[in-house]
Amino acid sequence: MSLSDAALPFEDIRSLVKSMPGPDEEAAAEVRARDAKLTKPAGSLGRLEDLAEWLAAWSGKAPPKISRPLVAVFATNHGVADKGVSAFPSAVTRQMVENFAAGGAAINQICRAYDIGMKVFDLAVDMPTPSITREDAMDEANCAATMAYGMEALAGGIDLICLGEMGIGNTTVAAAVINALFGGKAEDWIGRGTGVDDEGLARKREAVEKAVARLNGERDPLEILRRIGGREIAAMTGLIIAARLQRVPVIVDGFVTTAAAAVVYAMDPAGLDHCLFAHVSAEQAHAKVLEHMGKDALLDFGMRLGEGSGAALAAGIVKAAAEMHSGMATFADAGVSEKDD
Amino acid sequence: MSLSDAALPFEDIRSLVKSMPGPDEEAAAEVRARDAKLTKPAGSLGRLEDLAEWLAAWSGKAPPKISRPLVAVFATNHGVADKGVSAFPSAVTRQMVENFAAGGAAINQICRAYDIGMKVFDLAVDMPTPSITREDAMDEANCAATMAYGMEALAGGIDLICLGEMGIGNTTVAAAVINALFGGKAEDWIGRGTGVDDEGLARKREAVEKAVARLNGERDPLEILRRIGGREIAAMTGLIIAARLQRVPVIVDGFVTTAAAAVVYAMDPAGLDHCLFAHVSAEQAHAKVLEHMGKDALLDFGMRLGEGSGAALAAGIVKAAAEMHSGMATFADAGVSEKDD
Repeated sequence: MSLSDAALPFEDIRSLVKSMPGPDEEAAAEVRARDAKLTKPAGSLGRLEDLAEWLAAWSGKAPPKISRPLVAVFATNHGVADKGVSAFPSAVTRQMVENFAAGGAAINQICRAYDIGMKVFDLAVDMPTPSITREDAMDEANCAATMAYGMEALAGGIDLICLGEMGIGNTTVAAAVINALFGGKAEDWIGRGTGVDDEGLARKREAVEKAVARLNGERDPLEILRRIGGREIAAMTGLIIAARLQRVPVIVDGFVTTAAAAVVYAMDPAGLDHCLFAHVSAEQAHAKVLEHMGKDALLDFGMRLGEGSGAALAAGIVKAAAEMHSGMATFADAGVSEKDD
Repeated sequence: MSLSDAALPFEDIRSLVKSMPGPDEEAAAEVRARDAKLTKPAGSLGRLEDLAEWLAAWSGKAPPKISRPLVAVFATNHGVADKGVSAFPSAVTRQMVENFAAGGAAINQICRAYDIGMKVFDLAVDMPTPSITREDAMDEANCAATMAYGMEALAGGIDLICLGEMGIGNTTVAAAVINALFGGKAEDWIGRGTGVDDEGLARKREAVEKAVARLNGERDPLEILRRIGGREIAAMTGLIIAARLQRVPVIVDGFVTTAAAAVVYAMDPAGLDHCLFAHVSAEQAHAKVLEHMGKDALLDFGMRLGEGSGAALAAGIVKAAAEMHSGMATFADAGVSEKDD
């Protein structure tokens, strides 16, 4: 079965999830062994040492090497944006896609700074999904095809993938998906997104409540994704699964990308072990969903932009961690005395 | 008076501190005004927006631009290392200086990853200062000359300076300086450094107690620096002061570089406003000294290497913050709709 088969039904996706491999323990052990010989006190690079080991475990390469990192930005629009849940009009999604193409967005600058590739995936931006308060966002064929499209982001030898998204209204959709997956109340999972006011926040809560109520207690993660999700979340869910199968480490960005991760987590709690959570967003529910899944974020800069901006910043650090591990001299090479024992 | 005057006595340094300028409010206001027009929700880049403004305020340039960032690594040895306060022998300082020159240390890899310059300043590595438990580390002329030497790191148009150090035994010296400056007990300020065992930690406490006792309550920051400090701390203290005068923003690394910052803080609590604290180190006292000075660190990766490694990582983020602010399109440029009001 080809990962790019656009007709992939949910049963095949469930099979893919069941076949996801574990870490490459040999590569991870090689990194630990080399790390012990590098010219530094043991453990002194802290989290950076963990990152080098994580890269090896999930890429199967020791020492780890990042040659083709990519920020994949999935853009789409949402019918629910008509409910006044965002501080910006839906037209901004298309305008920002053009801004990405012209190199004018925040994510373009970060990618340039860290020499990371960037690709925008237009998921029918000009055809919003139906409002999830009233109708299912996708049918199964459409959702599965969108997931398969997301998997395409790995084409061409990408060896580190950063998730990014753009879609006015998508923090509402993400909150609905997470609420349906993890329970609790709508207000637990909503936040101000791009900067909605109190009335907008109330409309957001109402939209999430209506969307979740429509599910009638549906518990299947893919059904939740299909019925009250959005195309960018579906594409990123597919991409997270494909990356595991193709041994490409993943960097998750903020709240909306974490909703995609949550769908995978609900199918398999170990299914995110190849994912690094880049940062904890200012969107108040992000810390809660990370906590629910037992994930620690690398950075805490109060960001809430999306576009993969936090993921790309983290990728800059991951690249440095890989270069440190791979490029440093050993005690023997450099003639440096080891610790007194 | 030239900053490079090697005969600079303490009185002149005190005058320099008194003449340190405040922020360039005009440049900071320009950054805030431009930030409001950039194609992103207001505030959505969080701490990165603060970094852009901080750069402008302390470099006087809006939009901020970093063309010549440098990690300055100050290396020296300490007589107190003979007291068994470190897990590594003093010979490692010279060996690591050679490792820096050969490009094999952690800091070399980070500088390469982020295109940051690196320069090692050999502060008489082969002539350790006397042990601070028994004798003053420096006389006034020597201390002042070392501070002036540190100021030289800005030569050649450096526009962002990262503090780094290498010196076996220097977490003991740093703890002594901080203890004398800020009070409390020796055990409040000592930690395991490169990985000393319990006996080593007890010797470290004893060394700090003896050093501080020798001061007989001396409160003058420069006298404390001279008597129980070390050359790398003196050089970095000088550099922090010179950077303020020359409008070069500073990135402070871990515990030892923070001791240099603490000397400036004790002379003028506003004297560190041009300094960014890169990370909170795994050395347990680092968080305490940052808290004492009311400073928040950017990163928390459990690092405790020194060499400027945390500062260089933070510089990678600061560079990205500057490029985002300067390179992003405005709403008007990109034809992106602004927030609904």
